Amino acid sequence: MEEFIKKVKNYVEKNEKYLINEVRSLLQIPSISGTGEGIKETVSYLTKWIKDKLNGEVNLFNYFKNPIIYAKIKGKNSKKVIFYNMYDVQPVEPLESWESPPFEARIVGDKIIARGAYNTKGALMSCLLGILSYFELENELPFNILLVLEGEEELGSPSMPKFIEEKYEELKDSIMCYFAFPSERIIGKPMIVLGNKGIVFLEIKSKISKYDIHSSFSRGFINPVAVISSLISHLIDPIEGPKIPWLEEKAISPTDEDLQYLNDIKEASPLEEIMEMYGIKYSRIKGDEWYLSVYFKPTVNVDGIYSGYVGLGTKTIIPSEAIARLDFRLVPAIEPKDVIEGLNKIIERLGYKDLVEVKIHDAYTWSKTNPKEKVVEISKEVYKEMGLKPYIIPILPGSAPSYLFTRVLKIPMIATAPGHGGRAHAPNEYITLDTIPKIVMYTSILIKKLSTFQ
Amino acid sequence: MEEFIKKVKNYVEKNEKYLINEVRSLLQIPSISGTGEGIKETVSYLTKWIKDKLNGEVNLFNYFKNPIIYAKIKGKNSKKVIFYNMYDVQPVEPLESWESPPFEARIVGDKIIARGAYNTKGALMSCLLGILSYFELENELPFNILLVLEGEEELGSPSMPKFIEEKYEELKDSIMCYFAFPSERIIGKPMIVLGNKGIVFLEIKSKISKYDIHSSFSRGFINPVAVISSLISHLIDPIEGPKIPWLEEKAISPTDEDLQYLNDIKEASPLEEIMEMYGIKYSRIKGDEWYLSVYFKPTVNVDGIYSGYVGLGTKTIIPSEAIARLDFRLVPAIEPKDVIEGLNKIIERLGYKDLVEVKIHDAYTWSKTNPKEKVVEISKEVYKEMGLKPYIIPILPGSAPSYLFTRVLKIPMIATAPGHGGRAHAPNEYITLDTIPKIVMYTSILIKKLSTFQ
Repeated sequence: MEEFIKKVKNYVEKNEKYLINEVRSLLQIPSISGTGEGIKETVSYLTKWIKDKLNGEVNLFNYFKNPIIYAKIKGKNSKKVIFYNMYDVQPVEPLESWESPPFEARIVGDKIIARGAYNTKGALMSCLLGILSYFELENELPFNILLVLEGEEELGSPSMPKFIEEKYEELKDSIMCYFAFPSERIIGKPMIVLGNKGIVFLEIKSKISKYDIHSSFSRGFINPVAVISSLISHLIDPIEGPKIPWLEEKAISPTDEDLQYLNDIKEASPLEEIMEMYGIKYSRIKGDEWYLSVYFKPTVNVDGIYSGYVGLGTKTIIPSEAIARLDFRLVPAIEPKDVIEGLNKIIERLGYKDLVEVKIHDAYTWSKTNPKEKVVEISKEVYKEMGLKPYIIPILPGSAPSYLFTRVLKIPMIATAPGHGGRAHAPNEYITLDTIPKIVMYTSILIKKLSTFQ
Repeated sequence: MEEFIKKVKNYVEKNEKYLINEVRSLLQIPSISGTGEGIKETVSYLTKWIKDKLNGEVNLFNYFKNPIIYAKIKGKNSKKVIFYNMYDVQPVEPLESWESPPFEARIVGDKIIARGAYNTKGALMSCLLGILSYFELENELPFNILLVLEGEEELGSPSMPKFIEEKYEELKDSIMCYFAFPSERIIGKPMIVLGNKGIVFLEIKSKISKYDIHSSFSRGFINPVAVISSLISHLIDPIEGPKIPWLEEKAISPTDEDLQYLNDIKEASPLEEIMEMYGIKYSRIKGDEWYLSVYFKPTVNVDGIYSGYVGLGTKTIIPSEAIARLDFRLVPAIEPKDVIEGLNKIIERLGYKDLVEVKIHDAYTWSKTNPKEKVVEISKEVYKEMGLKPYIIPILPGSAPSYLFTRVLKIPMIATAPGHGGRAHAPNEYITLDTIPKIVMYTSILIKKLSTFQ
């Protein structure tokens, strides 16, 4: 192993410029799933790259809007490892806030600035380059790699469940699923993420009349903002938090095992740093309680609300309708159907059944990988070889459709990689330049370590 | 009197085309107080018209944005009657919904279509033409008319209190204030409006952070929509109505006298017609209770709310701020300060003092004229001469700064005129063509009747 590490170090040092340029080339092709801009070009580029450089067998699976790139790269034995990632990005607006064009991938100081640099085309290409480096050093992969690259992650991954269902037999006996992303929120402190909360993202709408009504009649009619506000205030107390017992009563989180990683969570994501980053004045809760709640409890949040008029001047109306969007995040053992049933019960109890429509946008469940899985140990060892000590994050407060791997395919999934980036979905999204050789190295060493997997 | 009525009838018949064209000429000049478009031209046009045709002494009073046109038209004796009206209108958007350009004042069938036709430049010019017709028939006014024409009514009349204060001595011994508007909501059923609710129009804002926060942290921070929703739901129950006892506990409304006019109110504005007009599905209350509440009780309404994102796609955030606008309508004896104090107490009681800012936009009090005032009898007599039976509306659920006349100057005020119009503030605002000669006649006869006022 020692020798292999040396070879990899040497490889990334010698090829640093090439590696960075390859990542920049991918970042220079737009791939905005919301608008469709550059999706075709990106799919062609990646397909050709995987065929030419990795000798992969590539197939495209088209269910909803953008294809899933599914590639098999043959190895020495019949074992399989899934590499999951995404090639789509969020829109670039507001353009004027970028210090360099979002698809120029300009190098500014020690960073590459580009939409997708951090989330996650930078990591995707670095990971592919990691496989390539293994090839160049060892001529052959020890096992089969199954690349699953989706182009709809920013749209809620609508095609993934169908794809996993269709390829179930081929995927289900894989050793693990690896999702590469630059996990050092604080440089030098990588995270191994083992789970995600599930999500139900829905819209509640109250439509009372065809037109806005003169507000002098407000004593006589129902105001749709009052309906939506009442419903929201039955779900959340702004200071106490969620106030719906059914959201938590079935939750089996945190477990004793989860609690062992509380310090890892705290050190990897200090609350003060999060508050500073967003300019937050107050925290509803503090200390351990904050981490226990945010990471391990289910939640309900209002993402937006809109009704009537709040522009310049006076406009006094009973608005004809009001709309709000809510997201519920789910921990073990709460499922999307629990949330939808619970919400409908509240609407019925309040007598709002005829006054409120609920429209589900996204709904998928939580995911957790056991920290005792051997692949977690292997991931830690890879970091050790690189001189880094990773933190174990048993579940992230955010959502991703990881359950498809852990709960449908029943294989362990780890989301990790060294490197640092930021401003996902925002202007001047970036990764640090050294993220690229670090992910290349990490991937190569991971393949090497996994080759001994029994 | 009979002879005078004949002369007036004859006059409006002979001059019908001229009268309609004079009204159209004013409607063809834009006068949007929000944007300032055409205000100067309108003020010049009216100033010249009043000087040339009515021999009025015109002065402009500029306090805030657009001048108050104050004109004295001399009469035989020293008595005074105030004619109040407004020359400003609301913006015309959405332009594409107009069937003819908003400042063309096109005649379509039996209507004139124009912004301001109904609210209230059509009535203003018809009223001036009524004074002119009196001149032409009788050579001299019996008393002084004081024209108070403001250009900021759609902005909440910010200059009017100062103007009334400054001209207090000159205005306070007037016989009455007359505000002409086409009052036949149902054709053939004019209303004599004797009062208005007061209003407090304000904004509540909750700002929690500098940037929108990733919603996965929602369990740990305060959501500003939850703050605003909670506050709203402590003010209004969507089905039960206002739920703040302090809003009603001092109210002395309806009085026994008010209740005598319940039938007038019901017949002049049938609930079914209001629901039909706005496309309203449910009424919170019904029958007499609806009218008693809407006309005689104070109320609180949400005019608009805005926060976060409810556009296409998924965006899961804790919005950095939320804003809502509320209007409170006040009956005797509730004053704006009662509302503001009451609201601040709720905010304090809920523990939201550091979380909510309140910004008052408009605030003025209620107005009522005693139905036993002699001028009300005179107004009824004018209708009788025209073959119409008016309804007495002791107080409108809507607001207007009428208190300046009834409570500051302590003179009776009546808002009335024959004629019909609609779609105030909306596309295709209109008056029926016959509204113009009818208001001319009404105004002439009113001057004649008031000349005998003791």
